[in-house]
Amino acid sequence: MSFGIFGKISAVEGKRDQLSEILLTAAKALQSMKECEIYMVNINDEEPNSIWVTEVWKDEEAHKASLSNEEVRNLIMKGRSLITGMERLNTFEVLGGKGLTK
Amino acid sequence: MSFGIFGKISAVEGKRDQLSEILLTAAKALQSMKECEIYMVNINDEEPNSIWVTEVWKDEEAHKASLSNEEVRNLIMKGRSLITGMERLNTFEVLGGKGLTK
Repeated sequence: MSFGIFGKISAVEGKRDQLSEILLTAAKALQSMKECEIYMVNINDEEPNSIWVTEVWKDEEAHKASLSNEEVRNLIMKGRSLITGMERLNTFEVLGGKGLTK
Repeated sequence: MSFGIFGKISAVEGKRDQLSEILLTAAKALQSMKECEIYMVNINDEEPNSIWVTEVWKDEEAHKASLSNEEVRNLIMKGRSLITGMERLNTFEVLGGKGLTK
């Protein structure tokens, strides 16, 4: 089973789209990181300053290790000034399904 | 942009794993449905009778159409007796990221 995370990021008023672009760049950076199966950037205009991120990792350790990856750290730094809050809504054991490599 | 759904299904006490298997079978049935990009079955033992499902569809219409698919309907019927509640937590515009075909 994989490790799933569902989180919500609050952006500075009006900066959601700019922040989303940084997160999508992070998703590209993660393309080469095979321990990351899914990194999905979601929005809903009912909450115009929020971004939700769905992640699936090989395991929790792989996710923690990614936070020390230089490219990921640089992007986090780049986005920091646009972020007013981060909330981890759920963590999961991902049993499987369509769209997962296993 | 794709259409994302994040929902929670409450199972009859002790029936979570049996219901999860039915949902994983539904995920297999969706393999042939290209409008469905992701159908992911998640659990968390802190809520032993809950299942969370993460879905990504081409658009909302494609998701609605899937509910009239015979194989999907049969599985829903099969799981019905094991379900005590279904809650749609979020719907999203999925901007993109790793693990999505677009």
